[in-house]
Amino acid sequence: MSVCSGSTARGGLTLRWTAGGDHSVVVGSRDADRGAEAATRYERRLDQHGYDGVVTGTDNVTAAERAEVVVCSVPAYHLADTVESVADALDAGDVLVSPAVGMKHDESGAHYNRPGAGSVAALAARAAPAEVSVVGALHNLAAGPLVDLDVDLDWDTLVVGDDDDAVDTVVSLADDIDGVRPLRAGPLANAAEVESLTPLLINVARHNEGFHDTGVTFE
Amino acid sequence: MSVCSGSTARGGLTLRWTAGGDHSVVVGSRDADRGAEAATRYERRLDQHGYDGVVTGTDNVTAAERAEVVVCSVPAYHLADTVESVADALDAGDVLVSPAVGMKHDESGAHYNRPGAGSVAALAARAAPAEVSVVGALHNLAAGPLVDLDVDLDWDTLVVGDDDDAVDTVVSLADDIDGVRPLRAGPLANAAEVESLTPLLINVARHNEGFHDTGVTFE
Repeated sequence: MSVCSGSTARGGLTLRWTAGGDHSVVVGSRDADRGAEAATRYERRLDQHGYDGVVTGTDNVTAAERAEVVVCSVPAYHLADTVESVADALDAGDVLVSPAVGMKHDESGAHYNRPGAGSVAALAARAAPAEVSVVGALHNLAAGPLVDLDVDLDWDTLVVGDDDDAVDTVVSLADDIDGVRPLRAGPLANAAEVESLTPLLINVARHNEGFHDTGVTFE
Repeated sequence: MSVCSGSTARGGLTLRWTAGGDHSVVVGSRDADRGAEAATRYERRLDQHGYDGVVTGTDNVTAAERAEVVVCSVPAYHLADTVESVADALDAGDVLVSPAVGMKHDESGAHYNRPGAGSVAALAARAAPAEVSVVGALHNLAAGPLVDLDVDLDWDTLVVGDDDDAVDTVVSLADDIDGVRPLRAGPLANAAEVESLTPLLINVARHNEGFHDTGVTFE
């Protein structure tokens, strides 16, 4: 799998999947050298925590070529451009995962900034080749705890997508992150409500003591 | 406090607050006789569960006149009309609680139907007299378990509002429902993300085994 480009979640996802043992993660960046540097940094972090995982780093296009699942971990406003930049490297049957959330912040707090396409995941689906399945997932995992392998996670994450096989693949990948439970939220048309959860978490963190980096569980 | 008009949540909130012991609930309906019948039904239910609480039932205007906190538990598309119908019965300093969520349903699932005002709570605030504080809360409590006093709840609910005293009042009321933990989500401008949680819960319930009537907790 590849985790492309450089949002704060890229490191956490890479570390958690590599520490889990069974996944080979290729880190992508717009610049191959920076991708390689990030990979070295992540390997050092794994080593510090007693894991001997291997992380490869390269440019986004090469990362996307190598992977069957591409997690496009970039800010929402870079998502379409990033997807288009790797589109030729994606094969039929590849899965593109969108964890991005469009937000705007004002004095009241964080707000979901719904794109005209209906959701950020729908935006990714528009930018991706037709034969690639887009799945929305992994939006609501706070970057701080995610990247810190000493922190035990206990979070649910929601998965939306139109292609059942692709959704199953991503559910399984999310399930491989220790302490993360994937739940299905239906087709891509339901992505907006999933993406809206992230600004809500930010507002809850801001207005309640002890809820910094909060996650959510359904029961 | 009064819980006005007849959505499915009205019964559950009335039963839970009355069973809790310290609250005097006046049930409102568009029709006084139907309000009285509902109150009798709720009292019978309380009695069956070993509580001897008293519930009064009347029309919405009378209910709103008697109460300092009015929970307007009606479908979103009736909310503005209902608030306007009781506006003259509300006094300065009264608190109007909006638990309503605007949704549309299609083959994909449930979707948040954001009103032009920005949120359903903002719609309520527009319809309410200026000297009444509107608080959004209690949206995401599944009616089935809420109304069944044999069910132990374990849910968070989000509270939004611009008036700190009114928010404190509603936080305290929500906290008095056994098994419900209120969390603050900031000013009324943050209501849309809170209201969006309800369709998400419906979609999660539909697409995962064992999540019927699911609630949410933040941690």
